Amino acid sequence: MTQLTKAKNGEITKVMEKAAAKEGVKAEVMRKKIAAGKVVIPANINHQQLDPVAFGEGLKTKVNANFGTSEDYDSIENELEKLTVALKAGADAVMDLSTGDKIKATRSAILEKSPLPVGTVPIYQTAVETVKSGRGIIEMEVEELFAVIEAQAKEGVDFITVHCGLTLETLRHLEAEKRVTDIVSRGGSFMAAWMFHNQQENPLYQYYDRLLEICYQYDVTLSLGDALRPGSLADATDRAQIHELLILGELVDRARAAEVQVMVEGPGHVPYDQIETNIKLQKELCKNAPFYVLGPLVTDIAAGYDHITAAIGGAAAAAAGADFLCYVTPAEHIGLPDLDDVREGVIASKIAAHAADIAKGVKGAKERDNKMAKARKKLDWEKQIELALAPDKLRKSRSQHNQNLKDEDACTMCGSYCAMKIVDQRLN
Amino acid sequence: MTQLTKAKNGEITKVMEKAAAKEGVKAEVMRKKIAAGKVVIPANINHQQLDPVAFGEGLKTKVNANFGTSEDYDSIENELEKLTVALKAGADAVMDLSTGDKIKATRSAILEKSPLPVGTVPIYQTAVETVKSGRGIIEMEVEELFAVIEAQAKEGVDFITVHCGLTLETLRHLEAEKRVTDIVSRGGSFMAAWMFHNQQENPLYQYYDRLLEICYQYDVTLSLGDALRPGSLADATDRAQIHELLILGELVDRARAAEVQVMVEGPGHVPYDQIETNIKLQKELCKNAPFYVLGPLVTDIAAGYDHITAAIGGAAAAAAGADFLCYVTPAEHIGLPDLDDVREGVIASKIAAHAADIAKGVKGAKERDNKMAKARKKLDWEKQIELALAPDKLRKSRSQHNQNLKDEDACTMCGSYCAMKIVDQRLN
Repeated sequence: MTQLTKAKNGEITKVMEKAAAKEGVKAEVMRKKIAAGKVVIPANINHQQLDPVAFGEGLKTKVNANFGTSEDYDSIENELEKLTVALKAGADAVMDLSTGDKIKATRSAILEKSPLPVGTVPIYQTAVETVKSGRGIIEMEVEELFAVIEAQAKEGVDFITVHCGLTLETLRHLEAEKRVTDIVSRGGSFMAAWMFHNQQENPLYQYYDRLLEICYQYDVTLSLGDALRPGSLADATDRAQIHELLILGELVDRARAAEVQVMVEGPGHVPYDQIETNIKLQKELCKNAPFYVLGPLVTDIAAGYDHITAAIGGAAAAAAGADFLCYVTPAEHIGLPDLDDVREGVIASKIAAHAADIAKGVKGAKERDNKMAKARKKLDWEKQIELALAPDKLRKSRSQHNQNLKDEDACTMCGSYCAMKIVDQRLN
Repeated sequence: MTQLTKAKNGEITKVMEKAAAKEGVKAEVMRKKIAAGKVVIPANINHQQLDPVAFGEGLKTKVNANFGTSEDYDSIENELEKLTVALKAGADAVMDLSTGDKIKATRSAILEKSPLPVGTVPIYQTAVETVKSGRGIIEMEVEELFAVIEAQAKEGVDFITVHCGLTLETLRHLEAEKRVTDIVSRGGSFMAAWMFHNQQENPLYQYYDRLLEICYQYDVTLSLGDALRPGSLADATDRAQIHELLILGELVDRARAAEVQVMVEGPGHVPYDQIETNIKLQKELCKNAPFYVLGPLVTDIAAGYDHITAAIGGAAAAAAGADFLCYVTPAEHIGLPDLDDVREGVIASKIAAHAADIAKGVKGAKERDNKMAKARKKLDWEKQIELALAPDKLRKSRSQHNQNLKDEDACTMCGSYCAMKIVDQRLN
């Protein structure tokens, strides 16, 4: 039984209560939204350490941090440190995207340590194991893929990205589009290569009911991946992308009918003026399923600063209704993120999420800003640090920038010409 | 005679030609827009080193970098280094906001070295000199203020921020509003303190014609400052802010009638969902005068990361029609920016400006992204570095993140599981 089953049956679970309390909304409101499929709580029955988090309509916009080993960087300890950094910076969920050795051990360690919902992309493990066994990805067996999904579900993974909407017909649209960057989704590329080679339908689509059964058993939330998310502005909102979204919408219906919690993933690289359209289209086509966006990145030319590119797009997306932002780090398009990248990525996404929550009128969002504004007016620096999104950074930066400071209330920007002080003497 | 006079007379000047060439627009189109007041080219007849830049409707969104000494940090060499950093990072204009000793010497050095238009806030020098002579800011003489403005105009300053719209009636609205953060504009606070104390009208408003005469003589572009820009989300779009904007609109009309080039400054701290309204309102009330926004900052709680907060707001503002973004550095709300802050601030604003230019369909904007996408698809790293907004950062970061790299075409994110490579083998 899933949280969706229970919500439909009118039951308010402990998981719902805890997630509702975090949002400051009533548990009954939460239950209704889950029953309607507008909210999900990824909470695998086997993830013991989980402190549940809800994603969806009317709730705080959430932020996901990706990490995981790669063949070039393969230390479990390092990935666990990234989890710690992501937690401290305020991430709401994490995904283990490991493709290095020791995939299972890395995942177990993360599941054991993470109070946040943990997501994975099961096809990564399947592909890596296929290659390790001396075969190409195109020789991956359907049974191997489902075995990995079932094993990960049993271990306690809370949500899985599965590229079920990449059908042969969707690939026909892709070929017709003659994109600049074809496919940039790693899981999508594995699946597409397999489908092209074998000229067979995507098994995650063909055997979707089997997937739903596994997810139902452990209450794994489906995160329907967008294999054809645009990898450049030129490819955004094209027929290939939108065809996949149509299919994902149908798969949302089927997941809900099977009482499996489901959210939908979205772009990607998208020009700023197309973001709102993308969000509204997803909400319509997918009947208000929670929308998990990867960026969006509003330019292709800012590698090294793509956390900023994604913060711009993420704020626009979340303000238009996206519910969940996948962080983008300064290392995006360059290499595997390090600890600094993880922290900077989470913070940039948190800024975008919070700005959007104020715009959307999410409960409690603007109150923190009002407290900060009052502390700033009083030149109360300790209070400002306490209220800041990144207190450590503010404390450190204040100390670095004010070594020559004569007037300790103020700062080195204006010194004794502080507008706050000057006006306060006259007006208050 | 100003560029506006000449444009109205049908003359295409060298200044217009140069600025038009940079935009890839015809000089006659530029002339018409200047004549209509929709575009300005701040180009003081005495700024010898100037390579002219145009600001306004249909043109690339521009980025300004502020620097200048303060009483706590007073090195001219350091501020000149900031100019170099800002130039390299791609700033389109700079403002010298010095309030330290040696104000005139700092400005002279910057004017001599800067090919970019240079702006100032003349009331800073007036206030500092008043205080140095043993008086309070409230004892500043009107003649002293105009003497400074005239001297700066003669020296070659291309644009000046003057808070002419802060009238006694505007201050009445301010008092009635009972704001959280009252006034956060430094120049605005000087003027308000003076007006409160002396119970006299703002001399920049009362003697606006005198100001226009000086600006006409040297072709100084007016940047009408928003003394009451909100300093917190709570104060955004209130009656005090909008009353000042009404007055600024009237002053735009008067500047144009006097053939003085004029742009208008705007907020400030603004919730994301109020940004478009702010831009459209300014464009209406100020009859399409170029709009120069200070941020906008979409949350109050992100000190240490306010370059990101401002990039989110700046993209939204520019996409809605703002023409010129004042950068915000990571040191905003903390202290005087250092060299790193200047670079990071310019780059964040450039990302916002470029994202908006793509959204607005500015000529040439998306072409660079398309080239980058093609280079990325080819895994051509040298070409990517060449096309990047911040090439040095990309080069350095790629080298740092890929020390363990086995497959040199790819990166440590995916290694041999690179989506680009996998799909390319199948599709192309």
